[in-house]
Amino acid sequence: MDPASFAFRPIARVHSPFVQAHGTPIQPCAAIRHLGGNQLPDEVSERVVVHDGGGRGTIEVDPEWVDGLDDLAGFERIWLISWCHRAVPAQPRVVPYRDTVERGVFATRAPARPNPIALSCVRLIGVAGRFVHVRELDLLAGTPILDIKPYVPEYDSHPVVRIGWIAGATGGERADGLFQA
Amino acid sequence: MDPASFAFRPIARVHSPFVQAHGTPIQPCAAIRHLGGNQLPDEVSERVVVHDGGGRGTIEVDPEWVDGLDDLAGFERIWLISWCHRAVPAQPRVVPYRDTVERGVFATRAPARPNPIALSCVRLIGVAGRFVHVRELDLLAGTPILDIKPYVPEYDSHPVVRIGWIAGATGGERADGLFQA
Repeated sequence: MDPASFAFRPIARVHSPFVQAHGTPIQPCAAIRHLGGNQLPDEVSERVVVHDGGGRGTIEVDPEWVDGLDDLAGFERIWLISWCHRAVPAQPRVVPYRDTVERGVFATRAPARPNPIALSCVRLIGVAGRFVHVRELDLLAGTPILDIKPYVPEYDSHPVVRIGWIAGATGGERADGLFQA
Repeated sequence: MDPASFAFRPIARVHSPFVQAHGTPIQPCAAIRHLGGNQLPDEVSERVVVHDGGGRGTIEVDPEWVDGLDDLAGFERIWLISWCHRAVPAQPRVVPYRDTVERGVFATRAPARPNPIALSCVRLIGVAGRFVHVRELDLLAGTPILDIKPYVPEYDSHPVVRIGWIAGATGGERADGLFQA
């Protein structure tokens, strides 16, 4: 198989209150802790809604894929699989946001990956036409979205015990620009 | 931004007991339920180990990225982000494995997606050199791996209530070949 044959098209773009890596929450859970709660009434309309209270943003899906959003509104959370378009080049080992020593990049969630794919479990507010409104966003404005999936606890929620180096991590929860090109 | 500029290289390949979609578990949780428990002693060595008991397989990482596996062994579960290389072309609406009516593709985990990316939370047995041994695999042999991430409950485990159409789903848990080209 020719690796060059793997190419993808973004299916959506993120509208986010975050325009630079510095200060952006490193994960959805950090968004909700550090940015306060929901400071806007929930609005589900065919327009963009962004607000840093709770990491509020809108995923604008390409018109050709709008039918793919049918039935999504029934889910409480969704996965956003996105491409970190402003990440620095990949490194096999990185000092992750939450640590002070180098770790293998596949043992971290840092964006400096060979394929800079981000995985974000965000809270779904609602769907209106091709506008998907979410909270707890941890993505920069303009981030290309590759896929949207429903969050299914049976598949995705595992109360694991061993979390490696993260068990002793002491670092912060907002990006410091380290991985931004 | 030119969408054509998005291209990726697989960083690893899957060695799996499953060589066709028919009969392959649709998710890791189905692998463990339907294929029995761990019928082999845990082996962590620099060779491939595959067995359908428990969905045992090996992820063989490209030599250039072996340093990226440092520190991974401390984690109990890992995410495999892969490319469903044998999926049928994308459809905006699909009849998912577990249902009998059409749903928007983004409200399902079916492989017939615009970017056929699969998300699998598998159990990590261990890492030896560039060989990552896992259980509860739900991927076909030869599937290209785009990324490996640690499973972090704080980021990934959410006890959500609303799971849309899946709450009433009655279908099976093994793929029936519907989405295989």
